[in-house]
Amino acid sequence: MKLLEQMIFEKGEILNGNILKVDSFMNHQIDPELMEKMGEEFAKHFKEKGITKVLTVESSGIAPALMTALKLQVPVVFLKKAKPSTMQDPVCCDVFSYTKNKKTTLCMEKKYLNETDRVLFIDDFLANGEAFKGAENIVKECHAEMVGVGIVIEKAFQKGHEYIVGKGYDLYSLAEIQSFENGKIEFKKG
Amino acid sequence: MKLLEQMIFEKGEILNGNILKVDSFMNHQIDPELMEKMGEEFAKHFKEKGITKVLTVESSGIAPALMTALKLQVPVVFLKKAKPSTMQDPVCCDVFSYTKNKKTTLCMEKKYLNETDRVLFIDDFLANGEAFKGAENIVKECHAEMVGVGIVIEKAFQKGHEYIVGKGYDLYSLAEIQSFENGKIEFKKG
Repeated sequence: MKLLEQMIFEKGEILNGNILKVDSFMNHQIDPELMEKMGEEFAKHFKEKGITKVLTVESSGIAPALMTALKLQVPVVFLKKAKPSTMQDPVCCDVFSYTKNKKTTLCMEKKYLNETDRVLFIDDFLANGEAFKGAENIVKECHAEMVGVGIVIEKAFQKGHEYIVGKGYDLYSLAEIQSFENGKIEFKKG
Repeated sequence: MKLLEQMIFEKGEILNGNILKVDSFMNHQIDPELMEKMGEEFAKHFKEKGITKVLTVESSGIAPALMTALKLQVPVVFLKKAKPSTMQDPVCCDVFSYTKNKKTTLCMEKKYLNETDRVLFIDDFLANGEAFKGAENIVKECHAEMVGVGIVIEKAFQKGHEYIVGKGYDLYSLAEIQSFENGKIEFKKG
């Protein structure tokens, strides 16, 4: 997605040589029009998949997931990064965040996915695929089916891509970063 | 907003006599079409206010805030419930959550609000107004101006309403709950 690559190029910041910060349009301040265009793009790609639910992780996944769900006319469920005391029948999964260097527990109320659901997972970033693996386990535990993975920004040089594609999932990333060479972002030629 | 009242009536759950759970369409699973209608409603109400930014709190505020910002064609900024290590110039504020019975720190990167900004605060719930007070302080510290407050569900019998209206802010709530009588939700007659 050209517009997104341009935004990353102009507004993205690289921290410590390997963390890409896109706080000015996605992870802290959000550009709603860009999110709407992303939602349209994901919906266009996955429209023939019979998606019944969009699944994401709070907080930064919510905006692109919501816009995608709006265009696909299905609900979105966001995994919570802790087990709220008001959850009645939680299904949880531990995931490790390399960025934060700590373990997080993702939880969902079990009733929001069942064996009739065809799930599209949407997230802001894909690096090592830890959040995806958590979501994959939760989907499996609910006997639902994961039918697609939509990522806003993929770090194609990390392990997540291989894991997802290797398992046969339809992975669609709006921007694929090949490398951070000398603090400069290189996109995969598409 | 009739549609919202109907959703609360049909799908809301009351926990411990005073906590309203709307997890099936707002706080865990999200109904994107309902969010879009809410965004339209807020945008219609506040359209003459010269809003330049929508401000909310992660995670449940993001969906209604994003839809409102999309309709008003301005960015949305969400306050984070912890100070991320990658924040460069944070402005923070401690708030007390009565639901969770604990203190939370709300933080924002200072550069996202400045003295030219006219801010619309959007949130999912208003009870004692703690989150609003935090946002109010952060807006003040950035020398921006708070010009409106949009709430999805207001518990009109708690202290937040009085605080916000008492300070002269334009408060617009889509559903105003008068009481939970014997586990039944009573809306304010509008």
